[in-house]
Amino acid sequence: MSPDEQAVHAVHVAWIDAVNAGDLGRLLALMADDVVFLNPGREPVGKDGFPAGFSGAQRQFLLRCTSDPQEVAVVGDVAYTVCRDSLSITPRTGGPSTTLAGHRLTVYRRQPDGRWLLARDAHTLSPVTD
Amino acid sequence: MSPDEQAVHAVHVAWIDAVNAGDLGRLLALMADDVVFLNPGREPVGKDGFPAGFSGAQRQFLLRCTSDPQEVAVVGDVAYTVCRDSLSITPRTGGPSTTLAGHRLTVYRRQPDGRWLLARDAHTLSPVTD
Repeated sequence: MSPDEQAVHAVHVAWIDAVNAGDLGRLLALMADDVVFLNPGREPVGKDGFPAGFSGAQRQFLLRCTSDPQEVAVVGDVAYTVCRDSLSITPRTGGPSTTLAGHRLTVYRRQPDGRWLLARDAHTLSPVTD
Repeated sequence: MSPDEQAVHAVHVAWIDAVNAGDLGRLLALMADDVVFLNPGREPVGKDGFPAGFSGAQRQFLLRCTSDPQEVAVVGDVAYTVCRDSLSITPRTGGPSTTLAGHRLTVYRRQPDGRWLLARDAHTLSPVTD
């Protein structure tokens, strides 16, 4: 990978690590101010709406995400990644886990200071039926 | 919109028109050779797999898609769009229609000849429950 691709890949890894650590502050620092998250069956979520959804989920569930990056493409000041994700959701009060699996398409924008921030994200995760 | 944004918007409109016309040839001409479509609950689809899925759906169903482009962003030779889509699926043998709604994040790449082609696409469409 080129240095730019490595930098975008590092943001991707940091994102997954922060999700698993429940680190809302780190996630907010990795997203652009005008970020848009697209989720199946739900309205789009922006930076303002992200904290309530993430914190609410973290309170109720233990989230464990794994992500396999399948593509990292950098073209000038834009990058996009395609990854295959799996998300395990376990109620903190006990009970069976649910597993979601699918893919994510993420667009990153390079900032004037050189940082890559997550700008647009659409995932297709849906429950795994064994 | 800038001329580049207008060109990407025109591809978006042409795509929706071709879906509604059942025009597989036009759709194939609008996508890059390495295109990847991400769909909830299904494996990713490339250019090779697209015709069978599209033609199979067209044989069984009348598809009617509407799309409201919410963002068209061009950065150099890459562009991305966010749109809100609705898809009505009516069995050709009769019976009730199903409506899916959601969003799409699409990445376009400018080709050496100047054309913009659809390169990556992830949608979140899911059944509308009234």
